[in-house]
Amino acid sequence: VMAVDHLSGERATAQFDVEVMKVYLAGGQREHEIATRMAQLVASDPIFSKEDRVRLARKDLYKASIRKAGHAWKTILEKGLSEEESMKLRHFVDEPTFTDLHWGMFIPAIKGQGTEEQQHKWLSLAYKMSIIGCYAQTELGHGSNVQGLETTATFDPATDEFVMHSPTLTSTKWWPGGLGKASTHALVYARLITDNKDHGIHAFIVQIRSLEDHVPLPNVTVGDIGVKFGNGGYNTMDNGFLRFDHVRIPRENMLMRLATVTKDGKYERSDKPRQLGYGAMVFVRQGIVIDASNYLSRAVTIAVRYSAVRRQFGNKDEPGELQVIEYRTQQSKLFPLLATAYAYRAVGFWMKWLYADVMERLKNNDFSTLPEVHACTAGLKSIATSVTADGIEECRKLCGGHGYLCASGLPELYAVYVPACTYEGDNTILLLQVARFLLKTLSQIGKVKPVGTAAYLGNVKQLSTQNCKVSQGHEWSNPSILLEAFEARSARQAAAVALRLARGSGSEADFQENTPELVESARAHCQLIVVSKFIEHLQTETIPEGIKEQLMLMCNTYALSQIVENAGDFLATGYLTGKQIALAKDELKHLFDKIRPNAVALVDAFDHTDDYLGSALGRYDGDVYTHLYKGAFKESLNDTVVVDGYEEYLKPLLTQNLWGPQSKL
Amino acid sequence: VMAVDHLSGERATAQFDVEVMKVYLAGGQREHEIATRMAQLVASDPIFSKEDRVRLARKDLYKASIRKAGHAWKTILEKGLSEEESMKLRHFVDEPTFTDLHWGMFIPAIKGQGTEEQQHKWLSLAYKMSIIGCYAQTELGHGSNVQGLETTATFDPATDEFVMHSPTLTSTKWWPGGLGKASTHALVYARLITDNKDHGIHAFIVQIRSLEDHVPLPNVTVGDIGVKFGNGGYNTMDNGFLRFDHVRIPRENMLMRLATVTKDGKYERSDKPRQLGYGAMVFVRQGIVIDASNYLSRAVTIAVRYSAVRRQFGNKDEPGELQVIEYRTQQSKLFPLLATAYAYRAVGFWMKWLYADVMERLKNNDFSTLPEVHACTAGLKSIATSVTADGIEECRKLCGGHGYLCASGLPELYAVYVPACTYEGDNTILLLQVARFLLKTLSQIGKVKPVGTAAYLGNVKQLSTQNCKVSQGHEWSNPSILLEAFEARSARQAAAVALRLARGSGSEADFQENTPELVESARAHCQLIVVSKFIEHLQTETIPEGIKEQLMLMCNTYALSQIVENAGDFLATGYLTGKQIALAKDELKHLFDKIRPNAVALVDAFDHTDDYLGSALGRYDGDVYTHLYKGAFKESLNDTVVVDGYEEYLKPLLTQNLWGPQSKL
Ligand SMILES: Cc1cc2nc3c(=O)[nH]c(=O)nc-3n(C[C@H](O)[C@H](O)[C@H](O)COP(=O)(O)OP(=O)(O)OC[C@H]3O[C@@H](n4cnc5c(N)ncnc54)[C@H](O)[C@@H]3O)c2cc1C
Ligand SMILES: Cc1cc2nc3c(=O)[nH]c(=O)nc-3n(C[C@H](O)[C@H](O)[C@H](O)COP(=O)(O)OP(=O)(O)OC[C@H]3O[C@@H](n4cnc5c(N)ncnc54)[C@H](O)[C@@H]3O)c2cc1C
Ligand SMILES: [Ca+2]
Repeated sequence: VMAVDHLSGERATAQFDVEVMKVYLAGGQREHEIATRMAQLVASDPIFSKEDRVRLARKDLYKASIRKAGHAWKTILEKGLSEEESMKLRHFVDEPTFTDLHWGMFIPAIKGQGTEEQQHKWLSLAYKMSIIGCYAQTELGHGSNVQGLETTATFDPATDEFVMHSPTLTSTKWWPGGLGKASTHALVYARLITDNKDHGIHAFIVQIRSLEDHVPLPNVTVGDIGVKFGNGGYNTMDNGFLRFDHVRIPRENMLMRLATVTKDGKYERSDKPRQLGYGAMVFVRQGIVIDASNYLSRAVTIAVRYSAVRRQFGNKDEPGELQVIEYRTQQSKLFPLLATAYAYRAVGFWMKWLYADVMERLKNNDFSTLPEVHACTAGLKSIATSVTADGIEECRKLCGGHGYLCASGLPELYAVYVPACTYEGDNTILLLQVARFLLKTLSQIGKVKPVGTAAYLGNVKQLSTQNCKVSQGHEWSNPSILLEAFEARSARQAAAVALRLARGSGSEADFQENTPELVESARAHCQLIVVSKFIEHLQTETIPEGIKEQLMLMCNTYALSQIVENAGDFLATGYLTGKQIALAKDELKHLFDKIRPNAVALVDAFDHTDDYLGSALGRYDGDVYTHLYKGAFKESLNDTVVVDGYEEYLKPLLTQNLWGPQSKL
Repeated sequence: VMAVDHLSGERATAQFDVEVMKVYLAGGQREHEIATRMAQLVASDPIFSKEDRVRLARKDLYKASIRKAGHAWKTILEKGLSEEESMKLRHFVDEPTFTDLHWGMFIPAIKGQGTEEQQHKWLSLAYKMSIIGCYAQTELGHGSNVQGLETTATFDPATDEFVMHSPTLTSTKWWPGGLGKASTHALVYARLITDNKDHGIHAFIVQIRSLEDHVPLPNVTVGDIGVKFGNGGYNTMDNGFLRFDHVRIPRENMLMRLATVTKDGKYERSDKPRQLGYGAMVFVRQGIVIDASNYLSRAVTIAVRYSAVRRQFGNKDEPGELQVIEYRTQQSKLFPLLATAYAYRAVGFWMKWLYADVMERLKNNDFSTLPEVHACTAGLKSIATSVTADGIEECRKLCGGHGYLCASGLPELYAVYVPACTYEGDNTILLLQVARFLLKTLSQIGKVKPVGTAAYLGNVKQLSTQNCKVSQGHEWSNPSILLEAFEARSARQAAAVALRLARGSGSEADFQENTPELVESARAHCQLIVVSKFIEHLQTETIPEGIKEQLMLMCNTYALSQIVENAGDFLATGYLTGKQIALAKDELKHLFDKIRPNAVALVDAFDHTDDYLGSALGRYDGDVYTHLYKGAFKESLNDTVVVDGYEEYLKPLLTQNLWGPQSKL
């Protein structure tokens, strides 16, 4: 059989070497090789198939998911995969499951907060998966405000135990992934009480299920919290609830690296710097930004390929119909998202460096960059996840009706991704943290030199007076002009809201009154970071010549489309004129023209396999219609030609026999 | 038992009579009474329960859905409900099903395009539901471009029949609701061919399933296209595919009101004005805008009530935690959406009038307002559905983690609503139609006086020169100032893009090059319509004094929040200054302060019952946590304490026995 490739024409027009770009996007030759191998391993193993996911009832879905998790573990052991390979393998299995929390939260939290002795004890069990752990922080009544958690851990010196208790309905643990059905242990955040004194929130390891038969231990009430958004999606995960009725655990189960409770109930903070946890936080957030790029690139791959296949309406001058990717409206939504996926990849690379830098500094007890790093990573998490979630939905809509079918792969992609806007910090609350940092930085100007991503605020005066000089469209493709625009806009917005606050009493109430403006200012700051890191990355890294031009195209497209999208800010601060915005729009169209012949190749470079994409619309070969049609025959409603329910419910209707013997209406 | 009402404090602060507002929002006393009665009827009947919807596998979901549809029909007959009551009943059953298409598309299309004889024949069957009909226009390869459909209906004079045929894979009908499993008949849009001549797209009634046993007729291939976005959601509907292999139907089955084929194969257009179909179009789009208001109001009701229950973080000055509805960021997203739901309700009322006006004019062969009406209703459909879909998701995110649970009611609400952005016309394509109308109107200024919603374009000169005079915040609550701002911005944007086109060659290619700006201009025009119709409505209708102030508050909040959200447009056109935008933001906060004590009452006035909302977060009594917790016990994974799959998949893992006899990994 000859392989079809409906997109070969598109691939022929590419002006760069896709293979080189693949290696770049993967982060290096080795990473590329591992990813390719692991993707292949998953795709070739029928146990990992995602085919049926959207059609399964919850119980079957969950069962299939724990089977995959177990099978992945077996595969890892059997093949002796490295940690890096194992992570990639789980990545390509591509569904949330209890092991995410076990490896991604339970183990790192023990590493970060446990003493060496505790680490030794628990990690040796966890690494073998002799226990399954989850991360139980959120409660029914409290999520964002961790200090408000109500679960109590009261020390009983008589038995040298903590008594774990859920005093109210709202103190019920609620949301922890893997808790509902899989975990044997939970890392429980609870209010530590010794001698009637409340010492605030601390972490405790609590066994919740028997290691013999998996039955919940006495006085533990635990289960799954129910179905979540979007078909298969996140429903492979057993997010759970958990209540304690005076459950006793040994004193040693409190993680004691940062604070201890002695046998006689004395509470002592250790002298370990509390900042040590920052490394883990930067690591997690770096992962979130890379993830955002990955999810967005999947949606963009599907939408770009399908837009090149889909034809609709004619051009009066030419025969046949136009590919919808030719339409400017389609391009003006799709190409900026493509550029964004590239931009977040570059930012992800930079954050890897940032993580290494932070770890190095922590080793040397240098905490000077931490506030800046904290703000910057919080903000990047916030904008990257929000933009990605919206971007996936946008891509889905750009596929017209067919995007609404699960066969497009897009509905599940959105549903499984969108909670990233909420977990690991609600995106609004994170931006408010960024805003507090910006205000503090501005208030210290002259006294403390701002560092890193906030350094430009040192120039706030100059940035506030000098307006943009663009007078011709092509100037908008100049990186230094773009960079200055973002710096000026962000500095001005931050200065403006700082001034408002300075005019007020400077109270918390003033801050609260101005939170909408503060959030906008924080967002401006974060968009600047993305632009500046992408530009820097292209200047400083050793990027192969063959792909540099395309990367610069992506960078300029990202920056310019952000200017157009946020024109209100640039105009309101007086930095740009309406005329300059119009020029930006024109230049953007020139960039779209440059992207157009490379569009399919630019998504090919993300190197997503058909198996991983799971989309009839996004297939590499563009053979969309054949596969949509074939796919319909897997629908369970098509198991019989006459649908189950016809006799009871449709026939009485059609035969006007609603009250007859057959009718169950 | 004493009834709890956690929100009674909120209700006590309301400054208007909620009952009066309910009647207003329902559209009158009679409408309110019917709605209340039908909501109650549905809520009290267990067959209509939505409880299990998200937990059912597709087959069971579909079966439950056709059962409800049949039961609704039986109830309608049993109780002798009027047409209005029947529609409301189906509305409260609240899930898409085949009867929507039967009543909403199949029957109206026959009314619009069938001759009197044809209407008599088919409608008498359809009204009894002796046949079930669907609307089969879209194909795998063609949706938006109806003229590109490929299905053929070739006349065979030898037998006086049409031969229906699907010549290609892409000509497969794909998407029609009710086609997949329920319908006996399809209204098929196909390319009419007589004597080798292609006469373009016409409508044909084709029987597809036996009335005896529901088996598809010979040479008909039909089935369901598969699972769609979002759990229960739209999956209660059997969107279908359909292929014909030379299926013969009698000549009389072509709908012949506008064109006929004679026995000897002659094609003749009737002299009936083609515009007659416009009435139906206005009617459908009016329904879409009312629907948008309804869906958005459901999401807003849930989010407002939950935001008043949910507490997070403290205010240093006060004890306890703040309700999250107190946060300005929360208000700045939530209150504009609340105002939007009110605005679309007012626009819906106006569109009812518009429909009556169009019908009256058509009766008198007055087609003068049709282009304006067409543009205006297309545009309102586009913005109302886009804003509503995004608004539902925004409300969900404003509920934090709990919004992601199906128990919040929000995931399904989004999933079931969002395709409204695509069906009945892709929203981008509709805005481009509006843009073409605006360009044409501008080009005729001086020759043809613009009418209706385009009348302001007659003032384009003046609107282009005179800038906004606001110098103090409170002026932003003046309706005439708000109205002028929207007129000026829209007129300027339209004039600017018209000028660009005029400078070019005026070709279709020029139009295509400027579609992003054209879409923006169309959107500006539609936002103006909403603002102007809301303002007019409040001035001219007899609105009870007791609710007028709150409605004006909603109107000003809607308008002002739109200005802030689209600040870029208002600034780029030079009509507003950055200072004036800042004043608008300040004034908006004052409006939020006025809304705050009324917020819960303003959503109560939508009068959504707990049954209809189906949301633990949006309950009238605010007893959120009790019901979230109770709800979890209905999850099928909780049927057993030890989950199904433990023995096979978790135990081998935990016992390091992956290769043992139990393991099925
Ligand atoms: C899929 C998923 C998986 C999860 N997994 C886990 C897990 O494994 N372990 C675990 O412990 N938890 C988990 N969670 C819980 C998650 O961490 C919380 O949902 C998240 O932290 C948000 O908190 P919340 O739900 O309390 O939102 P809330 O804080 O209640 O937010 C509600 C609204 O209030 C606003 N708001 C709140 N405070 C403020 C403020 N100070 N200023 C302005 N606005 C404010 C928010 O912006 C939001 O709009 C998970 C959640 C989800 C959805
Ligand atoms: C839930 C649901 C129910 C449906 N029910 C029915 C039904 O009962 N009967 C029926 O016949 N059909 C039905 N449909 C089909 C529906 O009418 C079409 O999906 C819709 O008309 C959009 O057409 P499309 O899918 O071809 O999108 P496309 O036109 O292919 O759109 C793809 C992209 O191309 C862009 N595009 C296309 N043309 C242009 C242009 N000229 N300029 C700029 N951009 C362009 C669009 O904006 C979009 O971004 C249903 C669809 C859904 C999702
Ligand atoms: Ca105030």
